[in-house]
Amino acid sequence: MATKRLPELLTRVRTELDRVMAFWLRHSHDQEHGGFFTCLGRDGAVYDELKYVWLQGRQVWMYCRLYRELPRFRTPQILEAAKKGGEFLLRHARVSADSPKCAFVLTRDGRPVKVQRTIFSECFYVLAMSELGRATGDAKYTVAAKEMMSQIVRWVREDPSGLGRPQLSGATPDSSLAVPMMLLCLLEQMEEASEEGEGAVGGGDGNAELGRWCVDRILKHLQRGGSVVLETVTPDGEELPGSAGRLQNPGHAIEAGWFLLQRASRLGDAALARTALASFVDVPFSAGWDPQHGGLLYFLDADGLPPTQLEWSMKLWWPHCEALIAFLMAFRETRETRHLDSFTRVLDYSISKFSDADHGEWYGYLDRQGSVTHTFKGGPFKGCFHVPRALYMCEKMLADLTDASKASG
Amino acid sequence: MATKRLPELLTRVRTELDRVMAFWLRHSHDQEHGGFFTCLGRDGAVYDELKYVWLQGRQVWMYCRLYRELPRFRTPQILEAAKKGGEFLLRHARVSADSPKCAFVLTRDGRPVKVQRTIFSECFYVLAMSELGRATGDAKYTVAAKEMMSQIVRWVREDPSGLGRPQLSGATPDSSLAVPMMLLCLLEQMEEASEEGEGAVGGGDGNAELGRWCVDRILKHLQRGGSVVLETVTPDGEELPGSAGRLQNPGHAIEAGWFLLQRASRLGDAALARTALASFVDVPFSAGWDPQHGGLLYFLDADGLPPTQLEWSMKLWWPHCEALIAFLMAFRETRETRHLDSFTRVLDYSISKFSDADHGEWYGYLDRQGSVTHTFKGGPFKGCFHVPRALYMCEKMLADLTDASKASG
Repeated sequence: MATKRLPELLTRVRTELDRVMAFWLRHSHDQEHGGFFTCLGRDGAVYDELKYVWLQGRQVWMYCRLYRELPRFRTPQILEAAKKGGEFLLRHARVSADSPKCAFVLTRDGRPVKVQRTIFSECFYVLAMSELGRATGDAKYTVAAKEMMSQIVRWVREDPSGLGRPQLSGATPDSSLAVPMMLLCLLEQMEEASEEGEGAVGGGDGNAELGRWCVDRILKHLQRGGSVVLETVTPDGEELPGSAGRLQNPGHAIEAGWFLLQRASRLGDAALARTALASFVDVPFSAGWDPQHGGLLYFLDADGLPPTQLEWSMKLWWPHCEALIAFLMAFRETRETRHLDSFTRVLDYSISKFSDADHGEWYGYLDRQGSVTHTFKGGPFKGCFHVPRALYMCEKMLADLTDASKASG
Repeated sequence: MATKRLPELLTRVRTELDRVMAFWLRHSHDQEHGGFFTCLGRDGAVYDELKYVWLQGRQVWMYCRLYRELPRFRTPQILEAAKKGGEFLLRHARVSADSPKCAFVLTRDGRPVKVQRTIFSECFYVLAMSELGRATGDAKYTVAAKEMMSQIVRWVREDPSGLGRPQLSGATPDSSLAVPMMLLCLLEQMEEASEEGEGAVGGGDGNAELGRWCVDRILKHLQRGGSVVLETVTPDGEELPGSAGRLQNPGHAIEAGWFLLQRASRLGDAALARTALASFVDVPFSAGWDPQHGGLLYFLDADGLPPTQLEWSMKLWWPHCEALIAFLMAFRETRETRHLDSFTRVLDYSISKFSDADHGEWYGYLDRQGSVTHTFKGGPFKGCFHVPRALYMCEKMLADLTDASKASG
């Protein structure tokens, strides 16, 4: 019986989460300026002091979430570091006091170095502020989250001009999967934070409408009769020409899968749950899993051509994190053994290839054959987020499933 | 004797150039709109119709250069395709009629899709127009080249605000090796084009002053007592902190090496020639050549850490092209056998790993072990340029060296 495996899996996941968090707690705190160092070498040594706003926001969120959800992480050290990270973002994330636009990367002491013409720095700012509001009970963080959320929704749905992207006559209007995924993630966060019913978090007529818009937009990326999830389509859900139109990112599709599954669960929408499982989890996993060397490929072209991205055949840590969450959530929903088998397969691959037994945390980047290409534990795009988020969510699900199987056993 | 090898090397290089050019002549011409398709699969099939301005400009330059310099390429077909490419750029490269700023990528029919906040699209526009002016004798192309060159020099040396980059308080002023290299390349082109003495091609007090500025800026990238060429330094030639400050790109340094060697030869500057050979060719080649698998690594960190670029350990075609030119030029200057040995080593690696015996042209991207990761022959950054430029320059040098050795033999 599949449930026999659950206690052992729970122990593995819990142990790994402790080892991962010990790494960040020990090496990443900037005691002088607040916030976190995230460019950390194999042993935790800081190799670059730049502070990437995505990663600052994500680490604040992660610390607060663990503080609230898992009793062994409910420590003053964790809350204090999260608050210092939140205050660093409040003081420094915005490029100027009169603009909502956040920097992409800051100096150690908080001066802006680069700005992206996208919404993502602002999204991780919202995630941080919302969860910090929940962990501390301090309304100023919650207000900051809501204000920025409203701004993001306006940029996405009403007027993108504040993002600073030029309008060019040859640029086909397009929809990037990341945008509705990110908004759905934020909506889920804000709804959880205000379960008591504080009303709409963004523009339009409230949460439900925004949620429908996000789901509808995500589903438009399902193309070719449901056989492929494409990263970029037209806003009406048509395929775009060229390499960009054919691009698949299996890990991203799988992440969208568990976002949709979570939404379907909230709404009690069985049809949406089936689509999420079949088309956003099973299909991209089958397409993306390397039959020769194992592991999820980073990018694919829907026509089987080589993607133009140089790193397409590498194995990155985060798609594996998303797959862990998605398959365990799929098992929780369906109790089909095959989903627990897939979870175990991804966990075995991840622990054996990414996890560093000596210093804790996971490596982020492997070549196609599965050898580590970058020995650092944190970098411009890898911080304290995907690994502990996956492990914490899996620990919670495995604990619930173990309890349930005991109760029924 | 080293010169014994020259005739055989000349034959190999000439044969390879013919195979490479046959590929582009057959597959890349857009008969309907002018310009070139550059996203070409292994067999030449177009997999994306986008037109990257860098690659349009480079192909026009390459066609005109071959037309002018090698009699077997002096064909109406080549001149006609170059002119249609030049006209396509004149009509469509600029984002708007009242701005000098060029797009980075255009639709097949010439509408702008993306703009970069750098000078490089404009630089390849200059290269195209200048050489097209020489090949056709039509002054309108030469005028277009000179006008854009003046604009580029103003952006780089006087006022970058027209490039559209925001000024941010945390962004340390920096000097990217690409900028003075590119200007020196353009200056060399413009000086060649106006050997009859039409005077200065840019701002300041003329060509000589601009040339000194470029050389001086390039030399500032030589750091740590001449042991390393860094991609980015401060404008005063100080090392920058973090990963960006430690970044090395051996192929780029080697390309700068032969640019400097060419300049030293023009100026009769023996000290500059020695620095170019020792510090910009020999040192980066030793640092970048993979002792285990052969081939030049794409990026290195000066402290031996992993660069954050995901593709750092891949083997790209173009650094090998630059090394071919640099080592043959080094041999021509010094007649030291070791330089011809290095040339042969790089040629053997390149022909065996990059060249496609079935369809012609070179693959662009190998993994560290030397296996092809991307089967296409052209992509967003690979067109009809580095391979034929290296082969044409090497053919010319080998022919001259062969003649010289016959004359002295």
